[in-house]
Amino acid sequence: MNFIKPTFLINVPQCKRNIEKMAVKAHKYNLKFRPHFKTHQSAEVGQWFQDFNITKITVSSVEMARYFADRGWSDITIAFPVNLLEINEINQLAQSIRLNLLVTGATDVLFLEKNLHSKVNIFIKIDTGYHRSGIEWDQYHTLEYLVKKLSEMEKLHFSGFLTHAGHTYHAKSKDEILQIHDDTVGKMILLKEQFKQYKPIISIGDTPSCSLSENFDLIDEIRPGNFVYYDLTQYYLGSCMEAEIGVALACPVVDIQPHRNELVIYGGGVHLSKEFLSINGHRIYGRVVKLFDSGWTKSFDNCFVKNLSQEHGILHIESEYISQIKTGDVIGILPVHSCLTANLMKGNEYYIE
Amino acid sequence: MNFIKPTFLINVPQCKRNIEKMAVKAHKYNLKFRPHFKTHQSAEVGQWFQDFNITKITVSSVEMARYFADRGWSDITIAFPVNLLEINEINQLAQSIRLNLLVTGATDVLFLEKNLHSKVNIFIKIDTGYHRSGIEWDQYHTLEYLVKKLSEMEKLHFSGFLTHAGHTYHAKSKDEILQIHDDTVGKMILLKEQFKQYKPIISIGDTPSCSLSENFDLIDEIRPGNFVYYDLTQYYLGSCMEAEIGVALACPVVDIQPHRNELVIYGGGVHLSKEFLSINGHRIYGRVVKLFDSGWTKSFDNCFVKNLSQEHGILHIESEYISQIKTGDVIGILPVHSCLTANLMKGNEYYIE
Repeated sequence: MNFIKPTFLINVPQCKRNIEKMAVKAHKYNLKFRPHFKTHQSAEVGQWFQDFNITKITVSSVEMARYFADRGWSDITIAFPVNLLEINEINQLAQSIRLNLLVTGATDVLFLEKNLHSKVNIFIKIDTGYHRSGIEWDQYHTLEYLVKKLSEMEKLHFSGFLTHAGHTYHAKSKDEILQIHDDTVGKMILLKEQFKQYKPIISIGDTPSCSLSENFDLIDEIRPGNFVYYDLTQYYLGSCMEAEIGVALACPVVDIQPHRNELVIYGGGVHLSKEFLSINGHRIYGRVVKLFDSGWTKSFDNCFVKNLSQEHGILHIESEYISQIKTGDVIGILPVHSCLTANLMKGNEYYIE
Repeated sequence: MNFIKPTFLINVPQCKRNIEKMAVKAHKYNLKFRPHFKTHQSAEVGQWFQDFNITKITVSSVEMARYFADRGWSDITIAFPVNLLEINEINQLAQSIRLNLLVTGATDVLFLEKNLHSKVNIFIKIDTGYHRSGIEWDQYHTLEYLVKKLSEMEKLHFSGFLTHAGHTYHAKSKDEILQIHDDTVGKMILLKEQFKQYKPIISIGDTPSCSLSENFDLIDEIRPGNFVYYDLTQYYLGSCMEAEIGVALACPVVDIQPHRNELVIYGGGVHLSKEFLSINGHRIYGRVVKLFDSGWTKSFDNCFVKNLSQEHGILHIESEYISQIKTGDVIGILPVHSCLTANLMKGNEYYIE
C-alpha cells in the first residue's frame, strides 16, 4: 500500500462480515432488512448487499435515490421528510421504481396527491423521543386524521409508520440503548395495534439498537446504515468491537513535535469531518492505528487526533510510539463518524480485499 | 431564486468589497498580498482577485496548487508542511510555476535537495504560539542550522520565515487578537533581524489579525484567506460585521414543530460541516436569514441552527418568526466556517451578481 495523500481504506472482508451479521439477525427475527445506504453512498459497496439477497434500500435524499435507481435498485425509501421542492425529481423516480416517501403532516399529503404523476408509498414519520422530526407517537388524533386522509388518496398508498430512535446515540451505556429501543418498540407496536385495520408496516432504524437488541417482536422492518463500516462513535456506545470497524483514513505524517508528544498529519476537517467524541475530558477526532497490507492494528493506547484544521490533523502520541514514527510515514486514523468521512472522501477510496 | 436543494450562495459584490478592502490595506502598508485560496478553492472566485492585480497565491495542498497552476496561477505557496510522499507531483509543479514550499526540519531539506529536479523557494515554518506545526520562534540554533543548510543547497532557495497565528481564533476579544498579532509580529521581526544577512521574507497570515490590526511594520507578506467570504466565526471574533459575510447556504424547510420552536431544513453536516460555536451556553451551527433576490436580511434574533445530522438541520426559531415560515420555503443559513462549507458545497454554488 502506497498512499501519498489522505485515502479512505475500506476493509472489504470486515464490511462483508458486518453485513452478514446484520442480515442473519434480520432473518432470525423475520425482519425486512432495508439497509440505509447514506453511510457509503457507493455503488460498489451497495453490490455487496446483493450477495445477501437485499433488494430494498433506504437513502436520505432524492439525489441519493436517483444515484441508486440509476444503478438498478428498484425499491427505495427516502427516509427524510419529503422535500416538496423536488417534486419533479420525485415524479421522475416514481415513474421507474417503487418509491417510498415520508410525510410529517397534511401539507405534504395534499401537495403530493395534487402534484404526483405516479403512485408512491407513504410512511408517516413518527417521533418516539428523538425530537428531530415527525409526529409525536401519542398524537393519536393527528395520526388518525392523516391515515384517513391518506386512505382517501389515489396516488398515495399508506404503507405504515417509520421512526428513527436517534437518541440512542446519546445513551451512556448499552443498557440505556436497550431501554430506549424497548421504549421505541413499545410505542410503535401501540400504533400498529391502534391502526391495525390499515395493516401498517412498522419500520425502525438506528444502528445501536439493531446491533445490540434482540427485541424485534411485531417489528416489520429495520433500516440501520452505519453498521457496514461502524466507527468510534459506535465503538464507544458499545454497538461494535473496535475490530469490527471496517474503515480507516490513511494519512501521511508531515511534522513531528516529540517534546509536545504531538505529530501533524495531512488529514484534516475536509477529510475526517469535524465530528468529535468527548472522552475523559478530551475531544477525540479519531484514534491512531498502524497500517499493514491487509488492514490495520488495534488502536494505540492513549493516542488520538486532538484537533483538526482544514487539512491538518494534530495527534497526541505517547512517547513509546512517537519515536517509531517519522515524517513521510503513513498512519491510519479510525474515524469518529464513518458516514461523514465516507462522504468527504468520495473518489479517494482504496479497497483492501 | 429557486433553490430546490442546499445551495451555496455567494454574494459577489460583497465578496469583491471584502477583497478590495484587504487589497487596499496591503497596499497602504506596502505588503505583498498573497491570499489563501483554500477558502474558496474556486477558479471563478480566484479570477476576482486578478482585478486587484493579485498574482501570487497561497494554497494548503499539492492538489490545490495543481488546480490553480492549471488555471494560470504561476506563483504559489503551499502553506502546509511539505508532504514528502508527493515529491513527483511537486516536481511536476516546480517545472512550470514559481513554487514556494514549507519545511519544518532538516529531514525535509535533505529529502527535497536530493529528489527535486527543479529549483523551489523554501520558507521555514515558524511556530509563534499556535503550536500546530513548525519550529518554535526562539529555537535559534535549530533555525540557524537550517538556514545555513539551505544556503548550501543547489535546488533550494531560502526565501524566509512563515507563520500562522491561528491562536487568534481562540481569542476572547478584539484586544486579545491584537495582542496575539503584536506578539507574533515582534517574534517574526526578531528573526528578520537575526537572519538579516539572508534577507528573509516575513510572511504572516490569519484573517482575524489581518482584518483588525494596523501593525504591519517590517512585515513583508500577508496570506489571509477566509476574509473573502468571512463567516460567523469571524463575526463573533469581531473580525467582520455580519453584513460583510459574503456567503449563505440556501436550505428548503421540510418540517416545522411550532410547539418546540423548531424547524427542520434539508441542510446537514454534509452541507454546512459540523463546526460549531459555543455562544451563551448554546452550540450554534449557523444563523438564520431570509433570502431575497439580491441577497439576504440581517440574521433573525435568537434563531440558530442547534443541531445537525447528515442531511437534517434542526433550527431553533423564535415564535414571532416561526409562524411566517412554511414547509417548502427556502431559508438562508450563515455558516460557522465558510471554508468547510465551501469545500462541502463544491459544484452547488449560485452567484448573486
